[in-house]
Amino acid sequence: MDQGLLKKLKEEYRITFSKGELLEQAFTHSSYVNEHRYLQLSDNERLEFLGDAVLELLVSQFLYREYPTVPEGKLTKLRAAIVREDSLAKFAKECHFDQYIRLGKGEEHSGGRTRPALLCDLFEAFLGALYIDQGLAGADLFLEKIVFPKITAGAFSHEMDHKTKLQEVLQQSGDVNIEYRLIKEEGPAHNRQFWTEVHCNDQKIGEGYGKSKKLAEQAAAANALERNLH
Amino acid sequence: MDQGLLKKLKEEYRITFSKGELLEQAFTHSSYVNEHRYLQLSDNERLEFLGDAVLELLVSQFLYREYPTVPEGKLTKLRAAIVREDSLAKFAKECHFDQYIRLGKGEEHSGGRTRPALLCDLFEAFLGALYIDQGLAGADLFLEKIVFPKITAGAFSHEMDHKTKLQEVLQQSGDVNIEYRLIKEEGPAHNRQFWTEVHCNDQKIGEGYGKSKKLAEQAAAANALERNLH
Repeated sequence: MDQGLLKKLKEEYRITFSKGELLEQAFTHSSYVNEHRYLQLSDNERLEFLGDAVLELLVSQFLYREYPTVPEGKLTKLRAAIVREDSLAKFAKECHFDQYIRLGKGEEHSGGRTRPALLCDLFEAFLGALYIDQGLAGADLFLEKIVFPKITAGAFSHEMDHKTKLQEVLQQSGDVNIEYRLIKEEGPAHNRQFWTEVHCNDQKIGEGYGKSKKLAEQAAAANALERNLH
Repeated sequence: MDQGLLKKLKEEYRITFSKGELLEQAFTHSSYVNEHRYLQLSDNERLEFLGDAVLELLVSQFLYREYPTVPEGKLTKLRAAIVREDSLAKFAKECHFDQYIRLGKGEEHSGGRTRPALLCDLFEAFLGALYIDQGLAGADLFLEKIVFPKITAGAFSHEMDHKTKLQEVLQQSGDVNIEYRLIKEEGPAHNRQFWTEVHCNDQKIGEGYGKSKKLAEQAAAANALERNLH
């Protein structure tokens, strides 16, 4: 197994596989297996089959918990946006998994290492291997580092960002009035800054700033959520 | 909560919910919620969203484990056949869940209680509730009683039946020669019985009988699997 990958997983994600052969299998593309038949390797396709379902459940569970009042239809759309091929390919690249997959020469030369479908499968195969090795909780911890922060940052739906999350949290205890107030703006047109406060039932609960009114409101909501949690 | 449902779950499936409100929610259709707004109930749609993913993972895991040499493409097709609407509606009916769902009057009069989409959603919602209440292992135990035996009986793919399973098991330790031998047939044409033995590398490992050669072979394979396991 590539020592760089083992080191990276350990240092960045605190993951050490007890069954190293699973990790190896997750990073083995069928094109590599076909070119090295004498090694009798297994490719990552069956792990991808399993990992696909692991991801689906963990993302569903996260959305179910984090957005307790969002209706099913919206959750389903959001889930689909998160588990789609190009999203997962991005996650794989962000983890630099593309550097470690073993490809056959043909696949390598035709640019397989940057192909979204291949990277998406790799990400799912890794999750499948992680699930077998460390259970649902282990796979969940990994997604907490890589996927979930993107969801709450609104990467998949602007409706699921900090503002929506804050609304969710506050409305759990009944109807409330949430208001974003622009307090100040300054600087030249090309580099303007906006300051915003968020109020709940006329009480200030957070503040933030940003390069647009929208970003300032997001920052204020994030600030309110943070205060609310601590 | 309907006492009949509680009793049935306990006696037939050894399931007792610690959070009874989850079970209640799983058996509450949106049409019932809409007709009883003053009760401020929650319908089962969000639980269905979650349960759908629980089912997907548990079925995937089962297939991954039970068929260690079946390629990903075949597993994916089989999974799709198992989790499709009409299959899940049948499972819901088999558990008599249709008797217990709370429907609005309109939905009831238009035959909602027998509608496959509604029953499918109900089955998934129940699984979602069971997962929250008793974790993945609890949901898995339920599927072990209701869904998995159908898979190994070949209900979703004749290729995944006892004969295929036996082949899977035997081939794990290398190439083997499996042979089904018709030993005897008797009885009148309209009620004929066939006796079959299954041999592995010329050693008898199972026997069975049935109303056709095919059924007799399935019975012999099931017998061999049983002997192999004990």
